[in-house]
Amino acid sequence: MCYADKKLSETKVFKDPVHRYIHVDDQVVWDLVGTAEFQRLRRIKQLGTTYTTFHGAEHSRFGHSLGVYEIIRRMIDDVFTGREGWNPADRLLCLCAALLHDVGHGPFSHSFEKVFAVDHEEFTQRMIVGDTEINNVLKQVSTEFPQQVADIIGKKSNNKLAISMISSQIDADRMDYLLRDAYFTGVSYGKFDLERLLRVMRPLPQGIAVKKSGMHAVEHYIISRYQMYWQVYFHPVTRSAEVLLNSIFKRVRYLYQEEYRFQHQPVHFYSIFDGKISVEDYLQLDENIMMYYFQVWQKEDDTILADLCRRFLHRHLLKYVDFTDDFQKNNWVELEHLCKKAEIDPKYYVVVDSISDLPYDFYRSEDDDGCQPILLLMPDGKLRELSRESHLVEAMSRKEQTDRKLYYPYEMIDDNTHHTEMKSKIRRILDRSK
Amino acid sequence: MCYADKKLSETKVFKDPVHRYIHVDDQVVWDLVGTAEFQRLRRIKQLGTTYTTFHGAEHSRFGHSLGVYEIIRRMIDDVFTGREGWNPADRLLCLCAALLHDVGHGPFSHSFEKVFAVDHEEFTQRMIVGDTEINNVLKQVSTEFPQQVADIIGKKSNNKLAISMISSQIDADRMDYLLRDAYFTGVSYGKFDLERLLRVMRPLPQGIAVKKSGMHAVEHYIISRYQMYWQVYFHPVTRSAEVLLNSIFKRVRYLYQEEYRFQHQPVHFYSIFDGKISVEDYLQLDENIMMYYFQVWQKEDDTILADLCRRFLHRHLLKYVDFTDDFQKNNWVELEHLCKKAEIDPKYYVVVDSISDLPYDFYRSEDDDGCQPILLLMPDGKLRELSRESHLVEAMSRKEQTDRKLYYPYEMIDDNTHHTEMKSKIRRILDRSK
Amino acid sequence: MCYADKKLSETKVFKDPVHRYIHVDDQVVWDLVGTAEFQRLRRIKQLGTTYTTFHGAEHSRFGHSLGVYEIIRRMIDDVFTGREGWNPADRLLCLCAALLHDVGHGPFSHSFEKVFAVDHEEFTQRMIVGDTEINNVLKQVSTEFPQQVADIIGKKSNNKLAISMISSQIDADRMDYLLRDAYFTGVSYGKFDLERLLRVMRPLPQGIAVKKSGMHAVEHYIISRYQMYWQVYFHPVTRSAEVLLNSIFKRVRYLYQEEYRFQHQPVHFYSIFDGKISVEDYLQLDENIMMYYFQVWQKEDDTILADLCRRFLHRHLLKYVDFTDDFQKNNWVELEHLCKKAEIDPKYYVVVDSISDLPYDFYRSEDDDGCQPILLLMPDGKLRELSRESHLVEAMSRKEQTDRKLYYPYEMIDDNTHHTEMKSKIRRILDRSK
Amino acid sequence: MCYADKKLSETKVFKDPVHRYIHVDDQVVWDLVGTAEFQRLRRIKQLGTTYTTFHGAEHSRFGHSLGVYEIIRRMIDDVFTGREGWNPADRLLCLCAALLHDVGHGPFSHSFEKVFAVDHEEFTQRMIVGDTEINNVLKQVSTEFPQQVADIIGKKSNNKLAISMISSQIDADRMDYLLRDAYFTGVSYGKFDLERLLRVMRPLPQGIAVKKSGMHAVEHYIISRYQMYWQVYFHPVTRSAEVLLNSIFKRVRYLYQEEYRFQHQPVHFYSIFDGKISVEDYLQLDENIMMYYFQVWQKEDDTILADLCRRFLHRHLLKYVDFTDDFQKNNWVELEHLCKKAEIDPKYYVVVDSISDLPYDFYRSEDDDGCQPILLLMPDGKLRELSRESHLVEAMSRKEQTDRKLYYPYEMIDDNTHHTEMKSKIRRILDRSK
Repeated sequence: MCYADKKLSETKVFKDPVHRYIHVDDQVVWDLVGTAEFQRLRRIKQLGTTYTTFHGAEHSRFGHSLGVYEIIRRMIDDVFTGREGWNPADRLLCLCAALLHDVGHGPFSHSFEKVFAVDHEEFTQRMIVGDTEINNVLKQVSTEFPQQVADIIGKKSNNKLAISMISSQIDADRMDYLLRDAYFTGVSYGKFDLERLLRVMRPLPQGIAVKKSGMHAVEHYIISRYQMYWQVYFHPVTRSAEVLLNSIFKRVRYLYQEEYRFQHQPVHFYSIFDGKISVEDYLQLDENIMMYYFQVWQKEDDTILADLCRRFLHRHLLKYVDFTDDFQKNNWVELEHLCKKAEIDPKYYVVVDSISDLPYDFYRSEDDDGCQPILLLMPDGKLRELSRESHLVEAMSRKEQTDRKLYYPYEMIDDNTHHTEMKSKIRRILDRSK
Repeated sequence: MCYADKKLSETKVFKDPVHRYIHVDDQVVWDLVGTAEFQRLRRIKQLGTTYTTFHGAEHSRFGHSLGVYEIIRRMIDDVFTGREGWNPADRLLCLCAALLHDVGHGPFSHSFEKVFAVDHEEFTQRMIVGDTEINNVLKQVSTEFPQQVADIIGKKSNNKLAISMISSQIDADRMDYLLRDAYFTGVSYGKFDLERLLRVMRPLPQGIAVKKSGMHAVEHYIISRYQMYWQVYFHPVTRSAEVLLNSIFKRVRYLYQEEYRFQHQPVHFYSIFDGKISVEDYLQLDENIMMYYFQVWQKEDDTILADLCRRFLHRHLLKYVDFTDDFQKNNWVELEHLCKKAEIDPKYYVVVDSISDLPYDFYRSEDDDGCQPILLLMPDGKLRELSRESHLVEAMSRKEQTDRKLYYPYEMIDDNTHHTEMKSKIRRILDRSK
Repeated sequence: MCYADKKLSETKVFKDPVHRYIHVDDQVVWDLVGTAEFQRLRRIKQLGTTYTTFHGAEHSRFGHSLGVYEIIRRMIDDVFTGREGWNPADRLLCLCAALLHDVGHGPFSHSFEKVFAVDHEEFTQRMIVGDTEINNVLKQVSTEFPQQVADIIGKKSNNKLAISMISSQIDADRMDYLLRDAYFTGVSYGKFDLERLLRVMRPLPQGIAVKKSGMHAVEHYIISRYQMYWQVYFHPVTRSAEVLLNSIFKRVRYLYQEEYRFQHQPVHFYSIFDGKISVEDYLQLDENIMMYYFQVWQKEDDTILADLCRRFLHRHLLKYVDFTDDFQKNNWVELEHLCKKAEIDPKYYVVVDSISDLPYDFYRSEDDDGCQPILLLMPDGKLRELSRESHLVEAMSRKEQTDRKLYYPYEMIDDNTHHTEMKSKIRRILDRSK
Repeated sequence: MCYADKKLSETKVFKDPVHRYIHVDDQVVWDLVGTAEFQRLRRIKQLGTTYTTFHGAEHSRFGHSLGVYEIIRRMIDDVFTGREGWNPADRLLCLCAALLHDVGHGPFSHSFEKVFAVDHEEFTQRMIVGDTEINNVLKQVSTEFPQQVADIIGKKSNNKLAISMISSQIDADRMDYLLRDAYFTGVSYGKFDLERLLRVMRPLPQGIAVKKSGMHAVEHYIISRYQMYWQVYFHPVTRSAEVLLNSIFKRVRYLYQEEYRFQHQPVHFYSIFDGKISVEDYLQLDENIMMYYFQVWQKEDDTILADLCRRFLHRHLLKYVDFTDDFQKNNWVELEHLCKKAEIDPKYYVVVDSISDLPYDFYRSEDDDGCQPILLLMPDGKLRELSRESHLVEAMSRKEQTDRKLYYPYEMIDDNTHHTEMKSKIRRILDRSK
């Protein structure tokens, strides 16, 4: 029997709190889970710094990746198999793409990618086609298989159905993370009816469609997403921790560029500072490594770096006020000026964060980022875009919501041992915005 | 108002997946949560290496510590307050002891303490009475308060009730961890009825008692414990990861003693190797630091250390067979001998693990380790030890169960490039035990 | 101690699947639960005929009434007590009104009230002030107390806060039934975060307000309601069972008026047919009595009544098509005509049902039926109507949705033993609407 | 295609709170659900009078029957299919037996069967082979099929595997009712891991066996059963309601035999009183009919019958004390004597109830009632009886527990308007037992 078709002698199961059990029958899948690159996902948290707000959110991308795989497996084995639109030859391709879709994530991806201009999707593809244990497994299926998997994840394939299963407005990725993140944070928002949703999905050449009779299950899923974004993912306290992370990364790069003499050399960062990081270097970066550096940097002579690291480790986060248009027009320039005078470097300490900076992919019928819309399969066999049928979704998709906040170091500004006059002015400005 | 009685202007809540919400009203409690030592608990997993078996078990001791606090808070505020046996003056003492009971845990405590002969309970007490942020908070309550809290945790206090709330056969610690570990692993075993159990507890001078009418709730709790121990805590795969950790620690200490030249010096370990670790050094040891070292040590020249670290990081665990009395008598000496000949050092690679080595505190009526038994409060006001009334508990407490397994490196033994004859003999011995 | 203040010697608890436990401390509440009128609620299903669609929905109004009581108890004891806007003297009043708010419900209220023009709210008030066991309990509190309780339920009191707790857009009634009906049907829609919602409620003279910071919890509740209405309460199959019930009630009244000789006299119905039902007669009507009659009427000579009862008991429901404006304009008159010719009486068998007939109280900012809107308490202390702040609610409250269906007896129309030509025409008309 | 193999054009699903969804693909199963006899199960509560103790327990045998069917369907389709021990030809037989296993239950079976000496298992079989809608469906499969189904349920078949799936110590019946009854009562006891348990089951000629590696899942199930029995099924308050029911049935039969002139003739009972009830008569008996009679009998002249019915309807239950051997020896004769003198008929009002009277089928290795023991399938392929391997089960199965209580009418005995001296003596006797 060829490797692609090889089954385990007995189904292996992973106990999973979200899906109860994750079932693996295929040797290829089992071998991928055992690779160093996949095991590394245990060392990268699914929600980055969200644990500073929701202490339960300590789960890693490892469980999520298994969960996406399991959803795709059920979608195929329980719903698609035997239906006209489904090509059984795509099964292994979809399972592997599901399992590996996040494998290129770096530590604290959100801030890390922003500051260092790397892209986890690119690294995911490089890991799949590069010289890795994952590649060694995949190429046993066939020489072209690694590239095929990478093309599904990179949305470059012609297989639109497979792409839509892994990445669209209603893909297995979102379905798993909403359920999983709700479970681990403990919030009650994300719990749509996965089983019902899977049952009403149908495979079509242009992607997954949902039977009209299941529209309410889709609405529930869309609303869950809306609520998870605003209640969990965009939580202002989490964003405060992200602001600190950003500042740490910016500061350390600045010091490196200025040839500052680190007591503890950031050797793991050199290639990323120099903008030429290899897959091998990248694989060594995980959140344990980051946290190690944050801890040792607490003792650096550079007071900004040391302070930022202490703040991050001990959760002395920045406070915030709403950053309105008025504030921007009337106070922002003055505030920056005053902070500089008070020796509080605004570049690292007084920061505006807008949620449009966050990966906001809430439902839009206008498909401007290549994201596929959700299609309903009507009783007459025609397809209709969801918001044309659902009042609820139509209403929700109309307006974009934004939220801008100004983050600032409360304790520094409240400390009157120096620059008392400046700080008193700063406080007056901030108090007006509360 | 004195600091001990100071309330927050509004109740602060932590969203918690196990207890829904954790409520903080006391300034002292709030300040303790904000200390560097308490925040450090986020970097120490509640279940050590269990995540290698149950991937959901990535939760830290931070959430558990809040959970124990919350159970004690409810026990006091919802059940004990106003009852005869309860002294309202003990409230803050119990809350602080609950919150801080685990604060001295080191990274991967189980193996760490075993190899390096440190004791987390001792460090908990040293942190509370030593020069720490925690101590700074507690001593504002009163000069004696830190020692009082430490004495509850250390079971040296005369306040038997308070001790039994934090540490007895039915304490808040066990109640939280059973529920929490069941939640995060996703198993269905640990879910006894906490609310019911709290409602039937009564404060007595000699400790917590449980009303007879609530005996079935206690039985459920005892059985949950039994099942969690055998299904989760003693899982043979987790023990395999612990065996690896043990070997890493033993190897690195050996190399240090032999004055091996590390490429990456284990500076964080020096004082522990030398047996004179301070609280300050100890506080820097967390699981991120450990994982950092394991990662960099993969490149050490010492092949044993490098291999053990690779195995641990990429989850190439040891396999196991039952280690019976027969095996010990007939095969053990020969097996060790053969392994040495095959250049597989049995000290690190072929290891017997017995669960009596694990912190097995399942219910015993014989109270040999100072652990308080569970007392039932009968309708006539008398007390009876639980197993005298419950057939189920009596049956369960009678016999001790042990489980011994022999762990071995499957791939090494199966690799026939060298020492083929020895290895073939080793395999024959092991196969007989399957 | 006066009766109003009398406490039970120990808290009594009811195990409840929705709230875990329902706690009773007050003698008055305990005595009310023990009355014949309250126990009768066990014989009236919470969701009438919904069990024909969701087989789990067999729960009665008894559990719901306890649940509403428990929510009000927690709202008062855990959130309102000690706050400025709350008058402690209103506690018992609110608890009793909560417990008794549904006590006047008749069997299968929806159809029963529609056909016989009775109003359960009126009967609730008559039971409270009339000669009943409930009244005997309440008047021990004070002579005026029964009328005060009735006035809260009847929204005639000046106590707007108490009214809003029992009946408003965000009252304890809706909060319990959404959670309870979701639990028993097994759907995943209704599960908003009750604990969070209670915590952000504030007592004001004009009614309950919700702190702005809790707006997302209110949104979740509003959406849960929307989804429960469309997924459960308005389910077309349930409406089909209601259509049958309507027809049974109409037929039996018609036969009574025509002096038809029943084999089994509907003695329990006489006073309701005659339009002069007393509280005593009303109390004897429960769903067991109804089902008894349906069963014995299966053997009546009147074929319409016998057939309708058989259909209801054995769940041979009517089928349905959408009843569009087009259909009404073009086909309706002809269809009725053909049915009569085919000896299918359209009065009982071919029925249009519109959900505007159902108690649709989904959120509207326009408060046309005396229903109080939801008020947000802003950080500056001002009040704002919810849809002014929430994009989601604003979007959802704008348009009314309606749904009209035509129900018809599939088997009769498909039976070609008689009137084959008519029936063939009828089928053609109906097929066009599928 | 033959009827036995006919599939529905699309899977039909029932929303079920316990199993999420119940899936029906077979036309035979769908047709059976639509029969009058199966729909009648909606009018018979799963737990009889348990709703008087746990108000959530209002669920009927309809949902349970679907649940048992669903468990068998999953056992076959997800676990057994394709394994050596499983004969695919038995699939429909097992599904039908599962669905129909309880169809012969009468109203309030426990008391009803006890007083009138009928047996629901006998009626189940009579319904399946007699002139019923169920039989009409089954015989379309084949002439012998109804008898084959009846023989599985009646344990008369040679197909031991099929029998053990429906009725053994670990059958689908028990598995569903433990989960379902725990869900509806709201207790936390019954929740073993169904999915895990199914996965470790193996089909063998002598019945279901469970893989040794799944032993802990079986233990969990056994303990759940133990706890459900003692916490729910044997609850003393429920038994009090059963005692009342018994008394009602006994009294009404006595009156019939004495030719008492009922105001409301119990026509539905005549054939059962006369000991010659037909299937047709039996099918008309449901709990609605019973409750109708209880209501109208409240107005009968016979004060005992009227009082017992009032008590049952309004939940004025009997109180209880432990009925010890001492009490029996020393007080019982005197107590009966005193009651008679005080005009309290002990036959109906002062009743000893022993739980050995209840269907106690908790695990026993000694298989005295034809109940099959639980077999473990060891790694070496041998079978071992569960209690030989499990310390826990061995301990639990050793001793039988019994519980005897004396039920008495508290209000009558406390009412001092008549027979004050007798009653005072009665109270003294009862008080000694508290």
